[in-house]
Amino acid sequence: MLPECPSRIYFQVAGRICPDLLQIIIMNRAELVSAIRSKKSVLCVGLDTDPSKIPAHLRDQPGGVLEFNKAIIDATKDYTVSYKINTAFYEAQGIKGWEILRDTLAYIPQDIFTIADAKRGDIGNTADQYATTFFDVYPFDSVTVAPYMGEDSVKPFLKRDDRWAIVLGLTSNKGSQDFQMLDTGGEKLYEQVLKKVASWASPDNLMFVVGATQTEQLAHIRSIIPQHFLLIPGVGAQGGDLDEVCQIAMHGDGGILVNVSRAVIFAGSGEDFAEKARESAAAYQAQMAKYL
Amino acid sequence: MLPECPSRIYFQVAGRICPDLLQIIIMNRAELVSAIRSKKSVLCVGLDTDPSKIPAHLRDQPGGVLEFNKAIIDATKDYTVSYKINTAFYEAQGIKGWEILRDTLAYIPQDIFTIADAKRGDIGNTADQYATTFFDVYPFDSVTVAPYMGEDSVKPFLKRDDRWAIVLGLTSNKGSQDFQMLDTGGEKLYEQVLKKVASWASPDNLMFVVGATQTEQLAHIRSIIPQHFLLIPGVGAQGGDLDEVCQIAMHGDGGILVNVSRAVIFAGSGEDFAEKARESAAAYQAQMAKYL
Repeated sequence: MLPECPSRIYFQVAGRICPDLLQIIIMNRAELVSAIRSKKSVLCVGLDTDPSKIPAHLRDQPGGVLEFNKAIIDATKDYTVSYKINTAFYEAQGIKGWEILRDTLAYIPQDIFTIADAKRGDIGNTADQYATTFFDVYPFDSVTVAPYMGEDSVKPFLKRDDRWAIVLGLTSNKGSQDFQMLDTGGEKLYEQVLKKVASWASPDNLMFVVGATQTEQLAHIRSIIPQHFLLIPGVGAQGGDLDEVCQIAMHGDGGILVNVSRAVIFAGSGEDFAEKARESAAAYQAQMAKYL
Repeated sequence: MLPECPSRIYFQVAGRICPDLLQIIIMNRAELVSAIRSKKSVLCVGLDTDPSKIPAHLRDQPGGVLEFNKAIIDATKDYTVSYKINTAFYEAQGIKGWEILRDTLAYIPQDIFTIADAKRGDIGNTADQYATTFFDVYPFDSVTVAPYMGEDSVKPFLKRDDRWAIVLGLTSNKGSQDFQMLDTGGEKLYEQVLKKVASWASPDNLMFVVGATQTEQLAHIRSIIPQHFLLIPGVGAQGGDLDEVCQIAMHGDGGILVNVSRAVIFAGSGEDFAEKARESAAAYQAQMAKYL
């Protein structure tokens, strides 16, 4: 387990990063695997907090979104090994959204893996800026990255041994068929992406996004990248089958993080929303525990 | 030309969008073409304002980045038809960076086309949030979009007749060779992207990013999408040839926006930086005028 250290809040309140202390709140692969084994869970709760969908008693209250997120974290933290913050939902709230993102990140317990789901991708000097954003300014363990622009757009996220890039492989949405499944001389585009990107870094700081709705491709993907962790969205509102995902994609280290967003955080819509979220997260964890 | 209306500052200071008035500060294709003809320019100045690279007298001053941007805009606005704000450089400054982005956007004259260079791309419900971010919260004319996740990740940016999506086609960086140039059964991936994405919207609210370093592909790209505007980065620091780009890619409506970032905004590094930026922008405009 991680050593005792100040919570993320320390860094945020101080308004800057303390590099010596920061190191110990970042999760490496061994720490992530330890959390998975100890909690018997590969659950990642996605904090896609649409302000229009939170319970009525919080909706128009100043600070309501942050209060909602904190209550969700308190209710689900025993069942989850990761939280994924979908930056879009915070960016769309303007500047106060970034304050909520910062304060939500600060509230996440130090032994839970954090993902900035930002899907950034740009030329090298710009990707460097995004790495600073999501590794230093907001000290996430990892950030999701789009591969279309190739090596120099991805490598800035792989420069640090203690931070992770999570690169889009085969996504969960209908549009994944448009380009990712194109045949590129015997291999589909997503296969080329997995192979080439995997050659740029070790499984110690690189993961891939593979949609839970793509189960017919999962075993093949596992054979291409047997060691990497997969971040698997698409269970819950998008309809992916959790049992099938666990059976096909898990490996000895757990090897997957299964993201569920709406089906956990919006499990309830009343004043008991946190209790409903806890029940939903607990049910997913129990289903996962069978395979761990 | 555009009718008289309050500057963008109005909306920002008011802290919300006024839909009736907003309409008249958004540039449609006819207005963009009119600006190109009147200024004899297709110059887009990229405000990739790295705080560590601005002149020393502004570098550590509170408000120095905004002051720098305003001086650059004042100095170059007669020669440019567009400003592109690279969001990464503002995101990396934390919350105050978004304030600078907002205030920079507000300072851009209403008859100049604005681009949020954000390269977002995610599933539909998330892409909707990004569209809100860059069309409503920060009222840009356009936003750059990554195509890897396909139709439902791009379409939310194409829903409005009066706002533009600028989708990555063939980018200017070395990494463009990794996936964009893959052969997908007789056509390269980027060709499939251009054709498929072009089928989702008209040239009235869709542009493509094509790097100036890709001149050997430019004529072919023009034949695939004869009507669309191209946003062309890569002239200047990245080494693309402006004359060649103008000769090959322009069409009767101008048809291109040529982005130059560092070679304009960092043309000087002393107290005369704005004058140096003006000279650089004026030189690019003069070179473009030969073809307009």
